[in-house]
Amino acid sequence: MKKTTKIPKATITRLSLYYRQLELLEFDGYRLVSSEKLAWLCQVNPAQVRKDLGYFGEFGIRGVGYDVRDLQAEIKKILAVNRDWNLAIVGIGKLGSAILQHQNLYIRGFKCVAAFDIDPRKIGKISPAGIKIRDIEELEEIARDLNIEIGVITTPASAAQGIADRFRRAHINAILNFSPARITVPECCLVENIDFTVTLDMLTYKLGHDIVQQYSA
Amino acid sequence: MKKTTKIPKATITRLSLYYRQLELLEFDGYRLVSSEKLAWLCQVNPAQVRKDLGYFGEFGIRGVGYDVRDLQAEIKKILAVNRDWNLAIVGIGKLGSAILQHQNLYIRGFKCVAAFDIDPRKIGKISPAGIKIRDIEELEEIARDLNIEIGVITTPASAAQGIADRFRRAHINAILNFSPARITVPECCLVENIDFTVTLDMLTYKLGHDIVQQYSA
Repeated sequence: MKKTTKIPKATITRLSLYYRQLELLEFDGYRLVSSEKLAWLCQVNPAQVRKDLGYFGEFGIRGVGYDVRDLQAEIKKILAVNRDWNLAIVGIGKLGSAILQHQNLYIRGFKCVAAFDIDPRKIGKISPAGIKIRDIEELEEIARDLNIEIGVITTPASAAQGIADRFRRAHINAILNFSPARITVPECCLVENIDFTVTLDMLTYKLGHDIVQQYSA
Repeated sequence: MKKTTKIPKATITRLSLYYRQLELLEFDGYRLVSSEKLAWLCQVNPAQVRKDLGYFGEFGIRGVGYDVRDLQAEIKKILAVNRDWNLAIVGIGKLGSAILQHQNLYIRGFKCVAAFDIDPRKIGKISPAGIKIRDIEELEEIARDLNIEIGVITTPASAAQGIADRFRRAHINAILNFSPARITVPECCLVENIDFTVTLDMLTYKLGHDIVQQYSA
């Protein structure tokens, strides 16, 4: 494998999309797929598919295409999703509950194994997903016991930084942040933000400027 | 304003972030901000802030900085969020309900004015957000009556393309797609995807490859 630090973020996002389409292709009984077909399914151009995969090795056979199952396995390895990951969710409001029950996470090996809140009316209750809602004070202990590696923040913005700090103390070094707050973490920690309004701003920007659709991850 | 089609997508995403921090600065009583401070708050470098804003004009005063309130107004104009937008949400499960009630959308002028489902047990009920859940068959009529411009898909993947086609027939040309399905739309339509698992894949990729944190939108 070549050096991974120079690989564009967009390449990694597209690998996720390729993987998803490969799953569907396998489900439909395909054993081989050309870069042209995979590209068409993912709404990118074939050269992009070849370039993205080329960062990580030689996976296709010229004139034949990619083995659907092998390429899935390779991408899973690259994305490090060839194993399960344990998640903790903090902030069990509407959004937190929805994510706790988000089928797609479980299917893809992202296991929400713990849920936390600060609201005494919620603590101790069993969420509809069947997971007990715990006091945030228990985070460090539970994180250790359940080997939690990814923390999900679904609190209001004002609480987000405090939760990020707690994650760090609990040795949870990867954070998925759904709050609109920007959080600051030390260099050893990873944060990805999902902010619906930022994405909506992208739509309104394009609507406002009459920009036609381009590929978007 | 210069030609907007060449402007990187990441610039638009950062404009959303700048806007958010400017709001907080105004709330805290600041009237001016330097590009250095704004950059620091947004976790980007100052040259990036100046470059991003430079695509759209000259907003700062050398040696003084940006007027916090004026720059907010300019960014709102650029992002076309200087007015409200009406949204329809299709698929009122856990996630759809959470989005219907997502305070942050309303605050930022994204009004969820209609909710649709295909489940007869849901149709006719009032969602906790106070919006009546309607039969998807009513989409075209309601879209016209309520001037809906953005459609939000929170259905399972298998239903997503059908909903996108319905949006198109209802002249809703901008779609925010929360389903893991890739949807195909004609060139006149816009789609932005929010897929939690794609973002989690980015985290696991970095965890798996020991990549330290870089700025991520």
